[in-house]
Amino acid sequence: MAGQTDQNSNKITVYDTTLRDGAQAEGVYFSLKDKILYLNKLDAMGVPYIEGGWPGANPRDAALFNQVSQLRLTQTKVVAFGSTCKVGEKAEESEILRQLLSSGAQVITIFGKAWDLHVAEVLKTTLKENLRIIRDSIRFLTRQGRRVFFDAEHFFDAWKDHPGYALSCVQTAVEAGADALVLCDTNGGALPEEIKAGVAAVKARWGDIEIGIHAHNDGGLAVANTLAAVEAGARQIQGTWNGFGERCGNANLSTIVPWLQLKMHWDVFPDPFLSQITHLARFVAELVNTTFDDRQPYVGRSAFAHKAGMHVDAVIKNHRTFEHIDPARVGNERRLLISDQSGKSNVWQRMQRFAPDIAKDDKRVKKVIAQIKEMENRGFQFEIAEGSLDLLILRSLAAFKEPFKLLDYHVLIDPIRGEADSVAVVKIQVEEDVVHVASNGIGPVNALDMALRQALTPFFPQLEECQLVDYKVRVLDGSSGTEAVVRVVVETALPNETWGTIGVSANILKASSQALIDGLYTAIIKTQKSR
Amino acid sequence: MAGQTDQNSNKITVYDTTLRDGAQAEGVYFSLKDKILYLNKLDAMGVPYIEGGWPGANPRDAALFNQVSQLRLTQTKVVAFGSTCKVGEKAEESEILRQLLSSGAQVITIFGKAWDLHVAEVLKTTLKENLRIIRDSIRFLTRQGRRVFFDAEHFFDAWKDHPGYALSCVQTAVEAGADALVLCDTNGGALPEEIKAGVAAVKARWGDIEIGIHAHNDGGLAVANTLAAVEAGARQIQGTWNGFGERCGNANLSTIVPWLQLKMHWDVFPDPFLSQITHLARFVAELVNTTFDDRQPYVGRSAFAHKAGMHVDAVIKNHRTFEHIDPARVGNERRLLISDQSGKSNVWQRMQRFAPDIAKDDKRVKKVIAQIKEMENRGFQFEIAEGSLDLLILRSLAAFKEPFKLLDYHVLIDPIRGEADSVAVVKIQVEEDVVHVASNGIGPVNALDMALRQALTPFFPQLEECQLVDYKVRVLDGSSGTEAVVRVVVETALPNETWGTIGVSANILKASSQALIDGLYTAIIKTQKSR
Repeated sequence: MAGQTDQNSNKITVYDTTLRDGAQAEGVYFSLKDKILYLNKLDAMGVPYIEGGWPGANPRDAALFNQVSQLRLTQTKVVAFGSTCKVGEKAEESEILRQLLSSGAQVITIFGKAWDLHVAEVLKTTLKENLRIIRDSIRFLTRQGRRVFFDAEHFFDAWKDHPGYALSCVQTAVEAGADALVLCDTNGGALPEEIKAGVAAVKARWGDIEIGIHAHNDGGLAVANTLAAVEAGARQIQGTWNGFGERCGNANLSTIVPWLQLKMHWDVFPDPFLSQITHLARFVAELVNTTFDDRQPYVGRSAFAHKAGMHVDAVIKNHRTFEHIDPARVGNERRLLISDQSGKSNVWQRMQRFAPDIAKDDKRVKKVIAQIKEMENRGFQFEIAEGSLDLLILRSLAAFKEPFKLLDYHVLIDPIRGEADSVAVVKIQVEEDVVHVASNGIGPVNALDMALRQALTPFFPQLEECQLVDYKVRVLDGSSGTEAVVRVVVETALPNETWGTIGVSANILKASSQALIDGLYTAIIKTQKSR
Repeated sequence: MAGQTDQNSNKITVYDTTLRDGAQAEGVYFSLKDKILYLNKLDAMGVPYIEGGWPGANPRDAALFNQVSQLRLTQTKVVAFGSTCKVGEKAEESEILRQLLSSGAQVITIFGKAWDLHVAEVLKTTLKENLRIIRDSIRFLTRQGRRVFFDAEHFFDAWKDHPGYALSCVQTAVEAGADALVLCDTNGGALPEEIKAGVAAVKARWGDIEIGIHAHNDGGLAVANTLAAVEAGARQIQGTWNGFGERCGNANLSTIVPWLQLKMHWDVFPDPFLSQITHLARFVAELVNTTFDDRQPYVGRSAFAHKAGMHVDAVIKNHRTFEHIDPARVGNERRLLISDQSGKSNVWQRMQRFAPDIAKDDKRVKKVIAQIKEMENRGFQFEIAEGSLDLLILRSLAAFKEPFKLLDYHVLIDPIRGEADSVAVVKIQVEEDVVHVASNGIGPVNALDMALRQALTPFFPQLEECQLVDYKVRVLDGSSGTEAVVRVVVETALPNETWGTIGVSANILKASSQALIDGLYTAIIKTQKSR
């Protein structure tokens, strides 16, 4: 926790800026719905501080803070981010500070300039006025009862150029009541030794106040610099999952947290967290629909994948020979790219849901694993599509009879025609009955969805309470233009449950229909069971 | 250069293992032709050592070494890689060593075990026998007049577990005549401090022999560890371009070389090299047809891309404010991304490309900014669609006349029908001519793309050399399920240029057609200009 630090404590506090600084990355965008999903999920996992955004900078962030109190978060504090008041402006008249206050956030992070180059060339003011706006802004907020974290922007560049002035800025923040001093390597150009020296200088003077580190990856050293800062006395680490962030990104929490907790024995998160970190990193990438970096340390799909024959051989003899940690500790898994034994336990465990007595070496377990591998090679990904995985398992157990069959379908799209510009025609069979219906829709996928529901609801009235809540498209092979293979993931919900299903094809409509139909199949199975 | 090191020299030698260890990465494969292209290119750039492969491990690598002498490389030495002889085997009877010799390579790198864990559990032999095979293998090769670099595998793990034995292995290699001692962090789990200690220990004992560092990135620290090794006395750096390599990859030369040469003032390459490094990194990614990591330090497309309005504003005033180096020094460029967070300066600068004299407070600048904000609210994102942005600007300047008009189109999708399962019908107008054509395609978007090209190519033959290289779909929220609004980004390429265009709609086909048409418009404008 911020504020007074306990010198004997082994505690490191994570400050997650994925939603704010992470969103500065090219191509990364969080909708309001994404942000709320994120906050709920990370609260449940126990992340202490999450920067929600800059209320006032855009309406979406203001709307988020309006909703935070209704979220009933129990472990996470949602932090509002902003700047000091402007040059020549009184703190109490600052629109920026007013909006930070009215966000209702109990913890507010404000950044101020620590580098004289910025004071002279960007703010175009005096060194003294810069100290004034730091002091007045922090005081204004603390007097309203808020806790303030002070981000000393460009602290390490400042420290190299004019250490005296950099320290004056920090001192001003301390005197004004800042609760944590966050030292930023804003341009990402510092070396670990420089980080250590800067942190140590602040630690030596204000050892009672929590010191944070905010590192960028422009030199490929954000992880090393964060670890160096901790070594020198920092106890709050700021970063983003997957290292998302402007330019080359922010310090990658998916790498730093395992380092600190697993190898350096700091107390970062309670126990179950670390084994969920691989899942978390992939969830965040899915949420913003960006490609997940498979080579990422600890959590990447290739992180424990062994290709060289000698390595595979050795790693089977003793995993320490070519693995720096046991992958299970971070929820990842070993992959032997030649003869793959991996995933067997997971699949077996999942199959036991439907066949409790099935043995681990049952032929059908092997068959399902082989099928998953073959399909994942073609672009399927069952981690995000458990509905489709269950159908695959049920089919292998001969325990699944399709509740309906799609005999034929086609879609006509006529975009000039206004909103409901597509018509889908579907022919389905349920038991002995064949129905042939058509429906308009907004775009081809919606038309198909509408037509399927129209045909099926008379037979399966429970589909009325089944909703399609998300629809995601990912192009798998970017190199071949509009012929590229696409993966569609559909999320379907019943009142108490949500799950994903998946389709892969060069034709987006075909991929969509696979995913939609798997979604309807699983909905029918689930509702039949509970009746 | 290897061998005796000059203590006063400021020289760092690059040892490029992209073709060998880089090829251990999942999805990375070099054909013989690729390898020869690579060697010719990097020889011209002046890379001193390139590991060609393991002759004998596969026929392709043997074939490569057969051809090396005909390549007439002037600056690069192609190094053969292999292991020591086997346990219980005489060096002169070793098939591995015989093949290394017959490769004709003048420099040979052999790896040997330095970690007792591996000796006991993988080689299953005595510590003494391991020293024997190191000694005999190196001696055998040096007596044939070859220079030998010794890779001490797992040196840093060994150094933590049993430093005495690790040093014995190195000592054996020295006594047998090794020309360089390469210390490997094979599992990638070491910290910079551990690397420094290990390198310093070797340096203290055998300071006359060149010390190399071979780091892996499993902890996200390969760059930091390589720099730490140099600080402690290593003068040969082993790595790969883009950090390609097994699991999380090898030390990334694209990051390390600029660090050493530009910021730490080591003598790594003669002058023109560094300004070609961005091109080189992208060339290597193209060669193996993998996605280039845009967030890569120094050479990534996002490495100097500024999105936040405040940052853009400051970087225009003085690039040092938010850039750790001048991007031109590594052959990269600054990009000011246009987004709803960006201010006036970005837009104004972009408009100056088409209207050099336009004032910053010109009404049209304000109008374009307002339009960008309104469109980004609806889901457009211009930072990834500079083609569509330019069209918007040209329209605001009344400098754009549409080269063709899409009068009508519709698409029929009949997925049951096999691969080319969609038909698009388009009616377009060019000047006074109206054409009405139809085309099959794989999925609706491909069919539309094919039909548009069929209709337009007679009027704009230059479209033959214009390619659609990427097609991305992102579902935005607004409403849930299949009615959701989608954003389509299309990337179009001419022989020397690539750019993005964008479309947003609830109908994926409508969004795609917007993006496709913007792509064709911009292609026509760009080719007309250059004619």
